[in-house]
Amino acid sequence: MLLLNIHHTALAVADLDVALERFREQYGVEPLYREVVESQGVEEAMIPIGGSHVQLLQPLDRDTPVGRFIERNGEGLHHVAFQVADIESALIHLEQQGARLVDTKPRTGGGGHRIAFVHPEAFGGTLIELVEVT
Amino acid sequence: MLLLNIHHTALAVADLDVALERFREQYGVEPLYREVVESQGVEEAMIPIGGSHVQLLQPLDRDTPVGRFIERNGEGLHHVAFQVADIESALIHLEQQGARLVDTKPRTGGGGHRIAFVHPEAFGGTLIELVEVT
Repeated sequence: MLLLNIHHTALAVADLDVALERFREQYGVEPLYREVVESQGVEEAMIPIGGSHVQLLQPLDRDTPVGRFIERNGEGLHHVAFQVADIESALIHLEQQGARLVDTKPRTGGGGHRIAFVHPEAFGGTLIELVEVT
Repeated sequence: MLLLNIHHTALAVADLDVALERFREQYGVEPLYREVVESQGVEEAMIPIGGSHVQLLQPLDRDTPVGRFIERNGEGLHHVAFQVADIESALIHLEQQGARLVDTKPRTGGGGHRIAFVHPEAFGGTLIELVEVT
């Protein structure tokens, strides 16, 4: 499998406005876009940093994956996303390696990209997202 | 402050050999280097992915920051590191913004780079490392 880049590192935050303002003050960065992704129950902001991004995720309500994450762990690092050339062949390869997948088929994520999540069990407690940029 | 890149995203793992083997099988990646950093109580491996890296951190023993992290949270995402042009001016700027610093002065980290950590309190529960590549 070819990993092209770390597409983003995602942080779960309780309040996107507060987080963006603090990130702006501390690091002088601005989001590329801000978008509600209903299918994932989040409002996200994508902040370019060099050739990668920090993604800020605010849950749309408590009963969403990110809402439950914050209730369990508090705010903090949520997942890391690898950019791949071909998401279908990446998923087939991971399945062959016995990795537990959250999504066996790609779906549409923020920015309109094709994404799939790999279960934290597959790699030492870390939730991994695959992104095929469209 | 100028953020040049996401230098790395760091994952705390219990066993570096097991993690490297699994990461190799799943994603076909190899570490650039592997190094014991006594001052941080870790053995680390730096895996290049595109223009960034995944850093794997194995605690040298339980009574270290990463050892306590794993005892508290299990394996998983530990911190994100931003590459900066000038680490001293970055720390001065963050202090002026009221960010709580772990290191008020740079120290030497893995790869011989100059590093400093910013407390998770400063940004929504996420431990941030600054790296000035030397």
